[in-house]
Amino acid sequence: MNTFGRIFRVSMLGESHGECVGALIDGVPAGIPISPDSLLPDLARRKSGAKGTTTRKEADVPRIMSGVFKGKTTGAPILMLIDNKDIDSGKYEALKNTPRPGHADMAVWQKFSGFADYRGGGHFSGRLTAALVCAGSVARRMLAESGVKVEAAVVEIGGAAGDKAIGEALDAAIQAGDSLGGIVECRASGVPAGLGEPFFDSAESLIAHAAFSIPAIKGIEFGAGFAGARMRGSECNDAILDESGRTATNNAGGINGGITNGNELVFRVAVKPTASIAKEGKTVDLETGKSVPITVSGRHDACVALRVPVVLEAVAAIVLADLMIIEQRIPRVEKAAVKKDKAG
Amino acid sequence: MNTFGRIFRVSMLGESHGECVGALIDGVPAGIPISPDSLLPDLARRKSGAKGTTTRKEADVPRIMSGVFKGKTTGAPILMLIDNKDIDSGKYEALKNTPRPGHADMAVWQKFSGFADYRGGGHFSGRLTAALVCAGSVARRMLAESGVKVEAAVVEIGGAAGDKAIGEALDAAIQAGDSLGGIVECRASGVPAGLGEPFFDSAESLIAHAAFSIPAIKGIEFGAGFAGARMRGSECNDAILDESGRTATNNAGGINGGITNGNELVFRVAVKPTASIAKEGKTVDLETGKSVPITVSGRHDACVALRVPVVLEAVAAIVLADLMIIEQRIPRVEKAAVKKDKAG
Amino acid sequence: MNTFGRIFRVSMLGESHGECVGALIDGVPAGIPISPDSLLPDLARRKSGAKGTTTRKEADVPRIMSGVFKGKTTGAPILMLIDNKDIDSGKYEALKNTPRPGHADMAVWQKFSGFADYRGGGHFSGRLTAALVCAGSVARRMLAESGVKVEAAVVEIGGAAGDKAIGEALDAAIQAGDSLGGIVECRASGVPAGLGEPFFDSAESLIAHAAFSIPAIKGIEFGAGFAGARMRGSECNDAILDESGRTATNNAGGINGGITNGNELVFRVAVKPTASIAKEGKTVDLETGKSVPITVSGRHDACVALRVPVVLEAVAAIVLADLMIIEQRIPRVEKAAVKKDKAG
Amino acid sequence: MNTFGRIFRVSMLGESHGECVGALIDGVPAGIPISPDSLLPDLARRKSGAKGTTTRKEADVPRIMSGVFKGKTTGAPILMLIDNKDIDSGKYEALKNTPRPGHADMAVWQKFSGFADYRGGGHFSGRLTAALVCAGSVARRMLAESGVKVEAAVVEIGGAAGDKAIGEALDAAIQAGDSLGGIVECRASGVPAGLGEPFFDSAESLIAHAAFSIPAIKGIEFGAGFAGARMRGSECNDAILDESGRTATNNAGGINGGITNGNELVFRVAVKPTASIAKEGKTVDLETGKSVPITVSGRHDACVALRVPVVLEAVAAIVLADLMIIEQRIPRVEKAAVKKDKAG
Repeated sequence: MNTFGRIFRVSMLGESHGECVGALIDGVPAGIPISPDSLLPDLARRKSGAKGTTTRKEADVPRIMSGVFKGKTTGAPILMLIDNKDIDSGKYEALKNTPRPGHADMAVWQKFSGFADYRGGGHFSGRLTAALVCAGSVARRMLAESGVKVEAAVVEIGGAAGDKAIGEALDAAIQAGDSLGGIVECRASGVPAGLGEPFFDSAESLIAHAAFSIPAIKGIEFGAGFAGARMRGSECNDAILDESGRTATNNAGGINGGITNGNELVFRVAVKPTASIAKEGKTVDLETGKSVPITVSGRHDACVALRVPVVLEAVAAIVLADLMIIEQRIPRVEKAAVKKDKAG
Repeated sequence: MNTFGRIFRVSMLGESHGECVGALIDGVPAGIPISPDSLLPDLARRKSGAKGTTTRKEADVPRIMSGVFKGKTTGAPILMLIDNKDIDSGKYEALKNTPRPGHADMAVWQKFSGFADYRGGGHFSGRLTAALVCAGSVARRMLAESGVKVEAAVVEIGGAAGDKAIGEALDAAIQAGDSLGGIVECRASGVPAGLGEPFFDSAESLIAHAAFSIPAIKGIEFGAGFAGARMRGSECNDAILDESGRTATNNAGGINGGITNGNELVFRVAVKPTASIAKEGKTVDLETGKSVPITVSGRHDACVALRVPVVLEAVAAIVLADLMIIEQRIPRVEKAAVKKDKAG
Repeated sequence: MNTFGRIFRVSMLGESHGECVGALIDGVPAGIPISPDSLLPDLARRKSGAKGTTTRKEADVPRIMSGVFKGKTTGAPILMLIDNKDIDSGKYEALKNTPRPGHADMAVWQKFSGFADYRGGGHFSGRLTAALVCAGSVARRMLAESGVKVEAAVVEIGGAAGDKAIGEALDAAIQAGDSLGGIVECRASGVPAGLGEPFFDSAESLIAHAAFSIPAIKGIEFGAGFAGARMRGSECNDAILDESGRTATNNAGGINGGITNGNELVFRVAVKPTASIAKEGKTVDLETGKSVPITVSGRHDACVALRVPVVLEAVAAIVLADLMIIEQRIPRVEKAAVKKDKAG
Repeated sequence: MNTFGRIFRVSMLGESHGECVGALIDGVPAGIPISPDSLLPDLARRKSGAKGTTTRKEADVPRIMSGVFKGKTTGAPILMLIDNKDIDSGKYEALKNTPRPGHADMAVWQKFSGFADYRGGGHFSGRLTAALVCAGSVARRMLAESGVKVEAAVVEIGGAAGDKAIGEALDAAIQAGDSLGGIVECRASGVPAGLGEPFFDSAESLIAHAAFSIPAIKGIEFGAGFAGARMRGSECNDAILDESGRTATNNAGGINGGITNGNELVFRVAVKPTASIAKEGKTVDLETGKSVPITVSGRHDACVALRVPVVLEAVAAIVLADLMIIEQRIPRVEKAAVKKDKAG
């Protein structure tokens, strides 16, 4: 379903080539200063333009339709919309009956009996992550007040690490009309111990749940992750140093038993290579039932992983903000705002 | 929170050294034959006894306290309890003030200000997975009627694959008073296309959410997963072969855009090495605040991954059963049962 | 929280004097024809203009921002917005520090420490029911296919029944600068037996939950309701006439044990008199702490109950549509649409 | 579904003539002293024995199966079971095919195709309210720490008020082999302003939702309720007396716009007459399809309303406890307990 969270709740909407994409967020404390401008820095980081990203250019200036009054959140639901303007749906009509390999097209066609908006992936497009980023900015602002900071970065593209190697890998893939995947790492500092709700809402469960909503994510690991599965216990256990729970190593990635332990939160996601490629693939024609070749000539990222970091930060911030509210570490009305207003 | 699912819902309870562990399941169709006996085969697979598993021996005969009448489910909530009998809590009193490295002890102590049941990990013990397995058996029974089958197996222990190599790795670790992690793979066949609910309840999101509730899981990947992040698009895209959506390869692991595509569902989890080891580690004494050495001499699995397969099947079955009900592919009253009852 | 429902889910947003009010609805089956025009008849019934209703005039033409493609629902979330245009916020600035008796002003001021949008009741305004009516229209369309029909009507205004008596009561109240309450009855025909989910989601629980979200509702009763509390069992029990469950009387209002019994669904709500009146009341000045007189001179309904019927139908339809989906009596893709599309 | 609440969550289970009834409660703060004994006073108030109540006698000593350690809550889910011992199911076998008028039998038979446990109403029996009362006791204990107190009382039986008139009405009904309904009023003092979550989780919505889960409840009204629908605004509006929001009258019943306003919370429910009566009624034989007379000779309350007060308190306390946690007015670890433990 399109809603995530328990108190701080995000509901998603929109299509790649429809009117807009957007997020409706509920449970935001009252008194937080939010404006369209305050959302722009995160949105800018998500934008395309760099090598390996699509040529679709959207202004991406969000409109805040509700829940903010006199520049501050009111406690009512906040609707944030981002219009779709640079739409070029022409080529999608041709692809209507030939589901693109690696895309959701075929599964979606089966689920919704052909009624889904197929233009640019419709509701299943990476375009929706622009709205996620807006919701993430609000969550991040809520966390900042409590000293929690979330940062993600690309650590690997097409198996290559380091700017130079990554640049070369991208060049080679682009030239081949092909695409690359990558690995993105996210770290959150200042996370207090005690976040996560047993049995099912472990910190890992919630972060993974939200992260797999990002298109193209196919794996996630916390701390040592898959490498930890090859360690011995004596190597993997993190020695506890003091009463605060600080550990000598961080193979747990900041989470034990599903509960944050006060150390840095660390996790990585695997981003598959962009499915849309100029190289010929193979699919079926849904009208004739025959096998046909397919090349996808639209405007696409050669490597969508490059744009994932700020989106990954967004989902991590969304999860942490909700857990912080549940744990009563973020109050329901921003205290700083109340004080300031009273002083002023 | 302790409940998972939308229509078919599982709520967990219990502690390692308390009265019992259990699961309360709601939304089970009426008319399904369920008895304590029908749960035993799955529970037997979870049991210890083999090399690398704990010497704690529990009869693990579940009691069904509600929701079943004349041998069939009634549509009302089903409470399944498994008593704890082979309890040896003595040593835990000594560990009360020295949180075990790699365990939830320290995080839980901080979250609940010392009120949690610390004996054997309390509510955070792997013991609760016995109840998960019971719920999984019911889910599995629901799926069977629709031709969906879920099977998991250990693919790697301590970096070793194959029975001989794994056996040697276990021997070495046990002799060293140490423990090993492992990787477990789960496959589901017969899964129809169309399961998964955008935006947030992608099939991957829900499976990952449930899987990270299993203690010791630190990573999950679908299809090609992390290896896919190192592929090119032309290699990773699965060619679509026919109108049913069958693909030539299965790098997607049976899920595109969060929706099952009708191919086999495939995912793997990383299980960290058992945290309880005889080798000396380091922790803090919560009473004195001083750093102290710690060895954990209780009865433990040298490799908990060995007992994960049936638990992983359980969570996969729980997720799939709920998605099948939501997609109206499992009816709310078992049709076969109705027919049989009418005939009889 | 701002979301209601389990599969068919409605999320609300907006303020009386903000940009817009709206509803984001999820879980709508794919293939249902929906257009802004299709929502107008219900919206028209909610409109003001008749005696006893406000002079605020809104065009109330909804915009569908997502989830509909080529005139039909896609299965993705549907955002419906109604712009606020006839806004006259001037007088609310004056009322900012003097919470209006009978309104949410004071409670909201305390809950959100003064950050809420106070203009025209903000998020707590009856204006939001326009969006509820849109969601209700979609629900009603879903139900129509299954033969379920929901109709509500005013049965009493200010204690008077019948058009003439009601007209006179309204005239008298308007002349006195006062307002009236009323009682509205809702009936749903064609409701199948078996809707309602024990223990907590009884049909009555869900309808009451949704109905009390409508501003000014202060009571609800099903079937004989409060009058039934004064009957004897022999009088109140509805004799069962045949295997379909048809009963001779309908004191149960179509619900037994929280489950619909196949008879007509009947319930009534108590609508309190409009709180905004020209007659002088008493409140406190939040800046000075002093008691002050207050008259509310804005544009208001003299009797909000007159506009409640279509809103009550909306919430009833929303609840029934969700229960019908859960009971698998409304499919997830509209069958008629699929057939028609295949034929065409 | 069988779960209610957002943070403090109650899940119900059990049948009238099965092993037990019970409640699984999650989200209870750690550190609260709870024991079976502490639940007895509330359970005693629910017990039968007085004039007009059933002769079924249950010891009703609850067992706490999880979530409590060393006499205090741990933060983990608490399972409370009450065994069924005084079971006399014989007569129900005879009633199996003749659904009792006024009962859930017929609706349940249709919903679950005959698989439901029909003995004594099964999962739809008033017997489950014993478990609700246990959960309510825990909620009440949580509220007490914050000065919130919930009390309910019978205000009317069979239309009669006052002990003498009620006694006479009961005698007459019992002699006639008939039953009576009644009206029960609940008041909560010490409720802070600001509880209730717009748009859908108004305080009234949640209380009504929970109250309609109690068998036999057919109406609810807050403050002036249905009488308020016959008032004018000038009469119904509660004058605000001071900055705390205290009002001169309380026609709002302590709730405005769905948010508590700091005044006493007041609501009333309509309880229908017990459906089981010795007087002859009319039903259908499900095997033959023929109309047949029916008398219900089991052990029943002549007036179930007499036993409702403590149950109504329980659901009110459950709702208020959850809203208090959401509003962060009840901490997640009991502060008094932490202090005392540190001192001790």
